Amino acid sequence: MSGTLFVINPNSSDTVTAGIAQAIAPLHGMGTPIDCLTLPEGPPGIESQAQADETIAPMLRLAARLEPEAAGFVIACFGDPGVHALRDRTAKPVLGIQEAAVATALTLGQRFGIIAILPASIPRHLRSLGAMGVLDRLAGDRALGLGVAELADPATTGARLVETGRALKDTDGAEVLILGCAGMARYRPMLEAALQIPVIDPCQAAVAMALGRIALHQTHRPKG
Amino acid sequence: MSGTLFVINPNSSDTVTAGIAQAIAPLHGMGTPIDCLTLPEGPPGIESQAQADETIAPMLRLAARLEPEAAGFVIACFGDPGVHALRDRTAKPVLGIQEAAVATALTLGQRFGIIAILPASIPRHLRSLGAMGVLDRLAGDRALGLGVAELADPATTGARLVETGRALKDTDGAEVLILGCAGMARYRPMLEAALQIPVIDPCQAAVAMALGRIALHQTHRPKG
Amino acid sequence: MSGTLFVINPNSSDTVTAGIAQAIAPLHGMGTPIDCLTLPEGPPGIESQAQADETIAPMLRLAARLEPEAAGFVIACFGDPGVHALRDRTAKPVLGIQEAAVATALTLGQRFGIIAILPASIPRHLRSLGAMGVLDRLAGDRALGLGVAELADPATTGARLVETGRALKDTDGAEVLILGCAGMARYRPMLEAALQIPVIDPCQAAVAMALGRIALHQTHRPKG
Amino acid sequence: MSGTLFVINPNSSDTVTAGIAQAIAPLHGMGTPIDCLTLPEGPPGIESQAQADETIAPMLRLAARLEPEAAGFVIACFGDPGVHALRDRTAKPVLGIQEAAVATALTLGQRFGIIAILPASIPRHLRSLGAMGVLDRLAGDRALGLGVAELADPATTGARLVETGRALKDTDGAEVLILGCAGMARYRPMLEAALQIPVIDPCQAAVAMALGRIALHQTHRPKG
Amino acid sequence: MSGTLFVINPNSSDTVTAGIAQAIAPLHGMGTPIDCLTLPEGPPGIESQAQADETIAPMLRLAARLEPEAAGFVIACFGDPGVHALRDRTAKPVLGIQEAAVATALTLGQRFGIIAILPASIPRHLRSLGAMGVLDRLAGDRALGLGVAELADPATTGARLVETGRALKDTDGAEVLILGCAGMARYRPMLEAALQIPVIDPCQAAVAMALGRIALHQTHRPKG
Amino acid sequence: MSGTLFVINPNSSDTVTAGIAQAIAPLHGMGTPIDCLTLPEGPPGIESQAQADETIAPMLRLAARLEPEAAGFVIACFGDPGVHALRDRTAKPVLGIQEAAVATALTLGQRFGIIAILPASIPRHLRSLGAMGVLDRLAGDRALGLGVAELADPATTGARLVETGRALKDTDGAEVLILGCAGMARYRPMLEAALQIPVIDPCQAAVAMALGRIALHQTHRPKG
Repeated sequence: MSGTLFVINPNSSDTVTAGIAQAIAPLHGMGTPIDCLTLPEGPPGIESQAQADETIAPMLRLAARLEPEAAGFVIACFGDPGVHALRDRTAKPVLGIQEAAVATALTLGQRFGIIAILPASIPRHLRSLGAMGVLDRLAGDRALGLGVAELADPATTGARLVETGRALKDTDGAEVLILGCAGMARYRPMLEAALQIPVIDPCQAAVAMALGRIALHQTHRPKG
Repeated sequence: MSGTLFVINPNSSDTVTAGIAQAIAPLHGMGTPIDCLTLPEGPPGIESQAQADETIAPMLRLAARLEPEAAGFVIACFGDPGVHALRDRTAKPVLGIQEAAVATALTLGQRFGIIAILPASIPRHLRSLGAMGVLDRLAGDRALGLGVAELADPATTGARLVETGRALKDTDGAEVLILGCAGMARYRPMLEAALQIPVIDPCQAAVAMALGRIALHQTHRPKG
Repeated sequence: MSGTLFVINPNSSDTVTAGIAQAIAPLHGMGTPIDCLTLPEGPPGIESQAQADETIAPMLRLAARLEPEAAGFVIACFGDPGVHALRDRTAKPVLGIQEAAVATALTLGQRFGIIAILPASIPRHLRSLGAMGVLDRLAGDRALGLGVAELADPATTGARLVETGRALKDTDGAEVLILGCAGMARYRPMLEAALQIPVIDPCQAAVAMALGRIALHQTHRPKG
Repeated sequence: MSGTLFVINPNSSDTVTAGIAQAIAPLHGMGTPIDCLTLPEGPPGIESQAQADETIAPMLRLAARLEPEAAGFVIACFGDPGVHALRDRTAKPVLGIQEAAVATALTLGQRFGIIAILPASIPRHLRSLGAMGVLDRLAGDRALGLGVAELADPATTGARLVETGRALKDTDGAEVLILGCAGMARYRPMLEAALQIPVIDPCQAAVAMALGRIALHQTHRPKG
Repeated sequence: MSGTLFVINPNSSDTVTAGIAQAIAPLHGMGTPIDCLTLPEGPPGIESQAQADETIAPMLRLAARLEPEAAGFVIACFGDPGVHALRDRTAKPVLGIQEAAVATALTLGQRFGIIAILPASIPRHLRSLGAMGVLDRLAGDRALGLGVAELADPATTGARLVETGRALKDTDGAEVLILGCAGMARYRPMLEAALQIPVIDPCQAAVAMALGRIALHQTHRPKG
Repeated sequence: MSGTLFVINPNSSDTVTAGIAQAIAPLHGMGTPIDCLTLPEGPPGIESQAQADETIAPMLRLAARLEPEAAGFVIACFGDPGVHALRDRTAKPVLGIQEAAVATALTLGQRFGIIAILPASIPRHLRSLGAMGVLDRLAGDRALGLGVAELADPATTGARLVETGRALKDTDGAEVLILGCAGMARYRPMLEAALQIPVIDPCQAAVAMALGRIALHQTHRPKG
């Protein structure tokens, strides 16, 4: 299973893609090249189920074009839009960042908390966690509740991340936190230092799992 | 987090340890040396909860001796004896092979089946899966029901693995299988070819996850 | 909330749409006109998650065009593709036939069985039921396992429906059955007579619920 | 299935029955006459499990007398006393208002909140929700905590409903609310306007579902 | 808490009451006198939810008469009719035989099986187990399927109990069995010998638990 | 099953053992002598999973020595270390105090709260409750958060118990409380009086259940 692991950011923001690329930098040199791509047809940001669902068709077309060179795929949007659809189309490893973050959290603490960007994301998270069958492990899901301008300011975002994470830890009982968004890995060391519990960047989690799958030839549709 | 990933087989069988070493061979060259060790104080095989629990104290002593050179630990007995205890003693990544296999299965199919060696293992598995909160994803857990002599015969074991796996797939609805024992990875390609669904060797799953954790400095107790 | 209840069949088969229209005939005269529509951009039949997801974008466009005359919407594909996306786009009642069938089943028997058309649908059903949080009520999900030619033959299909339903009732303990597909309501009376338990046609269930919602001005996004 | 849909209020308060009749007024003209009845043998109000259970025997006798003219039955007490017992006695559609409200809520938001009248009702609700298998969808259950005199004052009751609903929405994460009592539908528009999330009156929900069942000849015991 | 532990058989069969008295004979001499009573107003046997619910009002009246001499109450009908109602009326310990049998089973094996008398009992059991929140521990629930005449024949009943218990053990994976009916304790030793797993008579379980509660002054409504 | 019920305190504190002996004093005279023992090899107190697991091997050796005189065993450490291991080694009744307290709580209120000594105990409790399959019944688990010196002061401990119990009752909705530690039964009457809900001392619960098991010859491994 030579080839490249393609990490597809289904929104059209190259800044987010750059943040993902930076996040997964520690995972280079593990045997498989990694390439992070922006989906040009995606919206600037994915804020609703409708927007998420509308990325699936163009993502599937992009993945089909990448297929010949692909060792595997990561869909880098929390919510995992199209992850099951892509598994219908390829036999190579496919991971969503949400499912990978949750699978990782299961072995880092008994209950995990999710830091959502927007309040409206929480019902979507709950549907996904229900479909994954892991709701008993959820401590809580809390939204940052920041506007676009505030999110652009790292100091404000960092402070609010700590505040939200602290509520998940102290009030809800989370032993491990999941960043509910791609592209925020740069806050992970600061958050871990401030809260003293593990913090999972979902893109890191998904790429790490994908690399293992590729090395082990472990996929949802094994060769006959 | 330089150092070696230590894979501890808590039974005293060097043959099993050799099988584990062979299983994880594809995961060398991913940045961290891997060393598979036998626990001399362990029983020849672990067949009961009492036997499993009795390995914990000597395993903790062994891990304490390895700690200075360790990048992380994998406890290579299905049932994960002592995995939470070891997390109390070290801040480095610790993975049990059962929890890692289950976390892996969650992203390879909607329901997983477990192939147990002995019928008496099934209640232990169910307790672990309940503690993990993933029982809704379990299709079934079926025992091979082979005696020691039969297990020593690869042809008999292989045939029974296919038969048991087929029941999990066709009767119970499993989309992915977990080998409920360390040291059986050599049957994985044959089983995948016969059943056309993914088969997870738990040692492979755990070592792959551990390597990602080490690369990402992701542990249950982050540095302050 | 005057206007028409639009029932959108997201596959392109006018035969299926006609079957849906026939199924919901007993629900005319309940205060709201009902119109059943085919999605021309849909595939002839929806057999995979990828196909289901690819209908969402054109379905949203169709619904947007219908919005001014709409009293509400039913998405008439088991699997409910796009139901949450459409709720993001309209404040009028939106029901998926799968969720409505399940909600109906909850009050007709303690455990429900689902008759799937294809084995590959079952994992999708399980994800949806997990997201709905109702897996404890599921007795079983069994596929008809008929090819296209056999499905075209009513006698063969009817016989296999009875056989599959009987297994769900007798082996799995279902007290109520759900037809896991749009357009099969014509088999409902025969199945109920043969098995002596209630059988739910999901399109009937969804349209009936939608009519009540419209009469009560009950929607996911109430007027301010 | 001609005949009348009988809505039985199992307490002896004609005021409550009148409130129910007013609540379901929008559902007249959907093909089946609806008649709301008071159970004279019931207590003035149902506040305990003992009181609820004691209504069952006289309710069954009343339903037996109504059976010849009945198209179906709704038992209009949150807690659904006797709903399964009545299903043992009649083949016509029977709905409890609690189960119908919950089934409705499942398609209006990911997590529902319940506004209980009395704190002592909450354990009863939890038992029912457990029996329904829908606890994963519950955001919270909070009691108004008003005495009889305060409940008689619409302004006080309305204010407390908003306050309680706001806690369910903002603190517990409810996306949809259920009024945990018959006869409070008149507060629904005000609550929806104040909180901007759907509010379900359980009598409306049950009658709407019952009308659909009657039109579709859908019952727990189909004709042979 | 001096006084007598009253065990109320809510059906009117003195034969069943005698079987209960025989079952709990080993529990005499544990500090509290035990008296087994027949509810004269009950039906000869309880076969439906309607019959069960109709016993509640007369049972509450009987318990009220016994209250002055009571140390506690056991309601000796699988299904626990009126157990919560009686707790509303007395502060003394109240146990249902179904809930006590399940609580006992939780510490005797990982999954329990229930032997139901009638198939129609199974949905009632499932509702109770859902309300108790213990469905993850259920291996299966299977009915004897014997008619009245056959049940009167101990040899036939015994043989069918073994057959049904064996299916629960071997096919469904039960490690412990619950007799889903009062008055069958005399089969317990034979069944345990035949199947080699524990078998719980629910009346024995409930009386044993009640005696402990009485000795410890442990009740649902402690003294202020 | 003559012999003594041995209650093993797996920590080495004779003060704790004395507290246990005092707690179970009301259960003398129920047919079986009870003897409370300290495990000399245990740590002074059990605060981590590692410490708990390390008690198992010496506890098994102690139990083996006691076996000839034993009617049954109770392991008196919340967390139930070694309870399944001991069941592998003896056919006599074995109960853990945590599982017994939970089984007792299931029949005393719909949701139970746990008062933990240390915050770090909570994840261990959650794993056990998950393995028991009873998480739906948990209202909350809150730690006293007292240091060793404060715990030594009964007034401080009592006040904090009331405060913590009140939060579990009023904020989390607990109807019954479990003391999450052996040796605190002396606070039970005061707590019940202050909070007006039942409080379970786990040692009392386990010994009471064990006495019933012994009287009924009810064990996980019945005689053939």
